[in-house]
Amino acid sequence: VETNRIEALADGVFAIAMTLLVLEIHVPRLPPPVAGAALARALLALAPNVAGYAVSFIILGTLWIGHHNHFHFIRRADRTLLWINVFYLACIAFLPFATALLASYRDQPLAFAVYGGTLLLAGAFLYAHWAYATTGRRLVDPDLSDAAIAAAKRRIASGFAVYVTATLLSLLSTAAALGLFAVMPLVYMLPGRVDRHLTRP
Amino acid sequence: VETNRIEALADGVFAIAMTLLVLEIHVPRLPPPVAGAALARALLALAPNVAGYAVSFIILGTLWIGHHNHFHFIRRADRTLLWINVFYLACIAFLPFATALLASYRDQPLAFAVYGGTLLLAGAFLYAHWAYATTGRRLVDPDLSDAAIAAAKRRIASGFAVYVTATLLSLLSTAAALGLFAVMPLVYMLPGRVDRHLTRP
Amino acid sequence: VETNRIEALADGVFAIAMTLLVLEIHVPRLPPPVAGAALARALLALAPNVAGYAVSFIILGTLWIGHHNHFHFIRRADRTLLWINVFYLACIAFLPFATALLASYRDQPLAFAVYGGTLLLAGAFLYAHWAYATTGRRLVDPDLSDAAIAAAKRRIASGFAVYVTATLLSLLSTAAALGLFAVMPLVYMLPGRVDRHLTRP
Amino acid sequence: VETNRIEALADGVFAIAMTLLVLEIHVPRLPPPVAGAALARALLALAPNVAGYAVSFIILGTLWIGHHNHFHFIRRADRTLLWINVFYLACIAFLPFATALLASYRDQPLAFAVYGGTLLLAGAFLYAHWAYATTGRRLVDPDLSDAAIAAAKRRIASGFAVYVTATLLSLLSTAAALGLFAVMPLVYMLPGRVDRHLTRP
Repeated sequence: VETNRIEALADGVFAIAMTLLVLEIHVPRLPPPVAGAALARALLALAPNVAGYAVSFIILGTLWIGHHNHFHFIRRADRTLLWINVFYLACIAFLPFATALLASYRDQPLAFAVYGGTLLLAGAFLYAHWAYATTGRRLVDPDLSDAAIAAAKRRIASGFAVYVTATLLSLLSTAAALGLFAVMPLVYMLPGRVDRHLTRP
Repeated sequence: VETNRIEALADGVFAIAMTLLVLEIHVPRLPPPVAGAALARALLALAPNVAGYAVSFIILGTLWIGHHNHFHFIRRADRTLLWINVFYLACIAFLPFATALLASYRDQPLAFAVYGGTLLLAGAFLYAHWAYATTGRRLVDPDLSDAAIAAAKRRIASGFAVYVTATLLSLLSTAAALGLFAVMPLVYMLPGRVDRHLTRP
Repeated sequence: VETNRIEALADGVFAIAMTLLVLEIHVPRLPPPVAGAALARALLALAPNVAGYAVSFIILGTLWIGHHNHFHFIRRADRTLLWINVFYLACIAFLPFATALLASYRDQPLAFAVYGGTLLLAGAFLYAHWAYATTGRRLVDPDLSDAAIAAAKRRIASGFAVYVTATLLSLLSTAAALGLFAVMPLVYMLPGRVDRHLTRP
Repeated sequence: VETNRIEALADGVFAIAMTLLVLEIHVPRLPPPVAGAALARALLALAPNVAGYAVSFIILGTLWIGHHNHFHFIRRADRTLLWINVFYLACIAFLPFATALLASYRDQPLAFAVYGGTLLLAGAFLYAHWAYATTGRRLVDPDLSDAAIAAAKRRIASGFAVYVTATLLSLLSTAAALGLFAVMPLVYMLPGRVDRHLTRP
């Protein structure tokens, strides 16, 4: 089984999930005549939705780059890998709902639990994806180093820590939890250079 | 006619149908102030929709893997194969509607008939796809074994049996029918290894 | 400029337009308790929407196959061809709206005019696409025969005749016009074999 | 990191954003019996939405062609380029919302500011994309000429001028600003030939 059609399906699901996020931002319906100040207030009220759009888009970008990097090393696919991908993509495609829920109920820890839980499940399947492919170098190059395999695992696992922390933090302060979700992708952007150095010597 | 653009269109339709499933799960609209318990109840009421999302996503995954496997053996395409693909994809793209209908009316045998009927029609076109391509080795390798062709046919036909059984079962018990639809993809996941062994020796 | 990214964008737009058609079929909202007979009536009332879905899906299939066949012969792209493609795809992406309008107002000639006009415009850009690419063998193989170029033009032009006839027919009988739109793709399916023989000797 | 999966994700996001634009044009809901004249008035009232669809589709086409042209020269990708692409695509996927807002509030300078601001941000990321890839010939061919790099930069920067002018113009006359947004893609279509001559000698 070739990996390129898995990648095509994944690229499609990511592209659609990213683009569907915008459907959860609704154009305000104001009764005419519309005053500029009323429209400004209505648009300001959408700020959490726009912030949710931006954060989820960037988190999807992070997950897409992670998935993309796996296929830099994965040479073959089997039925198990195919199914791990299907489960992973089911989490990705669910994220627009979780984002809309969080934007609507951003003072409710339960909304954070759904959002964080979706990301945690996605991360778990991404971890399983890498672990399955690399155990005994099952579907990757035989000369892929142990250090590279472990570095990629640590990278995914560090995401778990952030998702769980943010979800628990929402019980104390939903504002702090929102901030953590917003900051997280930045962390992935910066030390990526170090990781890449480790994984592709 | 090359097969790669058929595969690209199919990957696109599958990716979109999978992702559109989530649009049928609506964020609950609760009047403020929102109590955590009220949100929990509203989310619990969405459980059948989430279950429908998960089951349909996995069934789409099964059908995508099946379609994907065909193109592992199909070498050329002609206009008839192109049209069988268009009809097949029309069934796939209809599944988000059938899923939303079943999630809304899960105690109505008619909703099961629409859902099961959509899957049955998709299965019929998938069967026609394989039968047309392999009859007289029309569009496949001449050395593809009779056993491999028959095994793939049996695999698709076994799906028919499940769809028809689940639809009829819904007349007696809609809960049992739901359970059968949910369990079916698991069956496809497990004996897949046996089938693959038969079809790619 | 390579043609493969134009094809990728086109495959994406076709796949999405095909799949969005289903969003115009809304799950009926019945007040509980729901009787089986009431659901059956509500689903029967959706029959024109389902028929519109099927017809538009198949028409999109026809147009996709036509566009696909062009790129079998087109070797290069330039900025003009790129723009003809963008205009063509704008018509394709508009078809879900035209389909929903026709399903809602199937007794109104104006709805037929919008639907037929969208197809006519799409056909005009498809004709321009082929004429631009083949004039002086600008972007195709120099040895593509005049007969093949003319046959493909006739094929697109015959579509014009059907769209205009169906739109005008709707002024006399909307039922007959609907029938003509439904039958048209069948015509494209059957004589396709003859045309292909002409265009690829 | 290969550039082909970035292009696949971008083609997907562009195709979906283009196609989602049509979801903002809603089929009018008229109470039966429907008179032809009432439907005609209702469709005429949709004219700004259809115009917005056409203009945004063509602007997306312009941006897609620009992005497409970059990858004609970019040979490699690194994490920074990946992230610039993610930010760029976040702007692209936001455009259906900005278009719907402008179609609903086309007499409000604020709606123009959102629309123009989205395009300006998209243009800024496109500029950053090209500047990052070409500085020190980081990710492009070493023999790409300075003139070609500068010409592509000027082309993107000229878009900035139009977006800013149209947004400011909306403070004086929203009709003139609409006209400028509608005319702008035409400008990109025509002198493109000159630019291409400069960038690909």
